Amino acid sequence: MIVSHKEEHYLTLTIARPERRNALTSAMYHALDQGLQSAQADPACHAVILTGTSECFTAGNDLTEFQAHRSAEDSPALAFLRTLANINVPVIAAVEGHAIGIGVTLLQHCDFVYAGDSALFKMPFVSLGLCPEGGSSTQMARLVGARRAAEWLLLGKPFNATEARDSGFITAIAPAGQALSMAQETATVLAKQPGQALRISKQMLREPGRAELMQTFDTERTHFNERLQSPEAQAAFQRFFER
Amino acid sequence: MIVSHKEEHYLTLTIARPERRNALTSAMYHALDQGLQSAQADPACHAVILTGTSECFTAGNDLTEFQAHRSAEDSPALAFLRTLANINVPVIAAVEGHAIGIGVTLLQHCDFVYAGDSALFKMPFVSLGLCPEGGSSTQMARLVGARRAAEWLLLGKPFNATEARDSGFITAIAPAGQALSMAQETATVLAKQPGQALRISKQMLREPGRAELMQTFDTERTHFNERLQSPEAQAAFQRFFER
Amino acid sequence: MIVSHKEEHYLTLTIARPERRNALTSAMYHALDQGLQSAQADPACHAVILTGTSECFTAGNDLTEFQAHRSAEDSPALAFLRTLANINVPVIAAVEGHAIGIGVTLLQHCDFVYAGDSALFKMPFVSLGLCPEGGSSTQMARLVGARRAAEWLLLGKPFNATEARDSGFITAIAPAGQALSMAQETATVLAKQPGQALRISKQMLREPGRAELMQTFDTERTHFNERLQSPEAQAAFQRFFER
Repeated sequence: MIVSHKEEHYLTLTIARPERRNALTSAMYHALDQGLQSAQADPACHAVILTGTSECFTAGNDLTEFQAHRSAEDSPALAFLRTLANINVPVIAAVEGHAIGIGVTLLQHCDFVYAGDSALFKMPFVSLGLCPEGGSSTQMARLVGARRAAEWLLLGKPFNATEARDSGFITAIAPAGQALSMAQETATVLAKQPGQALRISKQMLREPGRAELMQTFDTERTHFNERLQSPEAQAAFQRFFER
Repeated sequence: MIVSHKEEHYLTLTIARPERRNALTSAMYHALDQGLQSAQADPACHAVILTGTSECFTAGNDLTEFQAHRSAEDSPALAFLRTLANINVPVIAAVEGHAIGIGVTLLQHCDFVYAGDSALFKMPFVSLGLCPEGGSSTQMARLVGARRAAEWLLLGKPFNATEARDSGFITAIAPAGQALSMAQETATVLAKQPGQALRISKQMLREPGRAELMQTFDTERTHFNERLQSPEAQAAFQRFFER
Repeated sequence: MIVSHKEEHYLTLTIARPERRNALTSAMYHALDQGLQSAQADPACHAVILTGTSECFTAGNDLTEFQAHRSAEDSPALAFLRTLANINVPVIAAVEGHAIGIGVTLLQHCDFVYAGDSALFKMPFVSLGLCPEGGSSTQMARLVGARRAAEWLLLGKPFNATEARDSGFITAIAPAGQALSMAQETATVLAKQPGQALRISKQMLREPGRAELMQTFDTERTHFNERLQSPEAQAAFQRFFER
């Protein structure tokens, strides 16, 4: 359900589970993690493109998996996010349609994000009785400012491609259906850059926030797991599944 | 001079001293502080709305009180700001007319800020021989970028609602006179959110900057008190009161 | 090749080597450094204006000097940048035409930046086999957001005055040819501010990022010197000089 496709200088990872609006399962996080690690291990790889299907980026974490028991260790989702945040290969996201929950928070850790002009983003954590995750509790305000972070995370307000671009959440808007080709153009530019200079430069750009981000992942893991067990979250999930 | 009004799920605190353009006195800071603490202590409270009158938010600190002796301890103004920055209840500000000095810097610590389209903001600290306060020396650039922070704090340049929104200082502009009703709409949305998830999420969003902010309050207190005694500030106050 | 001109309350430093598009040499960095230090030492000085010629701000570091041996100590360029980042006198930049490489990164450490509407900015470090310098690896994303920083530093994408303003990189756009007079207007406003309050306030605004910036300068120095010796960079320089 994760399709991996390798060009000479870049790797494309496609989330492809359209019958469930690309909702992410543990197996899919694991496959994404493996894909990123293989790109990192290949010196000829200058970029990873991360995309969904033409109608949907991802509806977020598969909610049925939120009801399973969680250990205190990293979930597969969090292990994937740590890899995404730590590799030195530039990552380019191409988004069409909905990006929900972790489908939004994972974009924080990509270097370039292109979204079709009908894309819609939403982080409904609080209304589900949950709390910010994916690094968003500390990183979202740094990326888009505290005002947008509060609207998106406390109110759960959805936002479109224009607001995403104007706030600095995404790199640029593509005509609907063209986000992937915009990502490919950027991958082609990166393919021509000197490879070592490119990786060192990305690593330097990511380094200042890295320690804080890893600490944030730890803190959020604790809060999020507590929230999953809370009566507020259990009630919200029940309402969701009754619909 | 601070009017407190309680709805089922939110508290409204109104600065009401229109004969002095809502200039803030020690007694008023104390009342605001108490109001925030009462909101924090009430689990049913999902939001605090902080507003002024229909013509003016606040002209800032009452200048007559700047001439009183200051101890090295927190002033009532700073005690209020610490409470504002530390509570977990979301705070929504509604601004009409002028917001001056601490009337601007306190807004940094609110989660949502709505301003009527004729609002005007100004931080004339340097021209008064003073220096940034209210956390603005470190937090303003994080909120609005270093370029706006330098214009507003070093030049003392006034800014209007449009610049406030475009820079990320406020959440949204309301038609003149409608800032309070916009704040009430947001309070109503927050009232429907699961209460514990909401408070934990706000706390998580505020946590990363908290230690730096408390340190900033300390540093600014020292510099500001020294500045208040300086010939530059004394001369500026004298010019002000002669007008 | 650096022209220094003193008014009563501000100093203007002009990069004037138009036959080489104002490319900066060690001697020029040293003269700029000395100019900044003289401004800092003069309590009557309220501002420094840093500008180029009417056609060009600067093409960046003179590439012939990149081929010289570098010690592990600060280069004259880096010594200048440390002074620029550490003085308490406000610095105002006026940019016309091209600003390349360090001609862009030095602007991060100015308090006000005005650019003519035909200005063009470019940081082609990666395509030269190099890496971010001048503090840009940690400070650029803080100033303009991570999306613009990635485009400008990893892709080496040029950007114009409009993008520079909208992202928060510059303070304002001037009609072509008017950047210097805009800078002079700001210097005149600063000249009227109380001098001690002004310097303390600038120092307070710069303090929070200072330790990180000095650490960044150290880290970048190491990476940049390694990159200068790399086959990727040597090949890029050879291609440049063959043109």
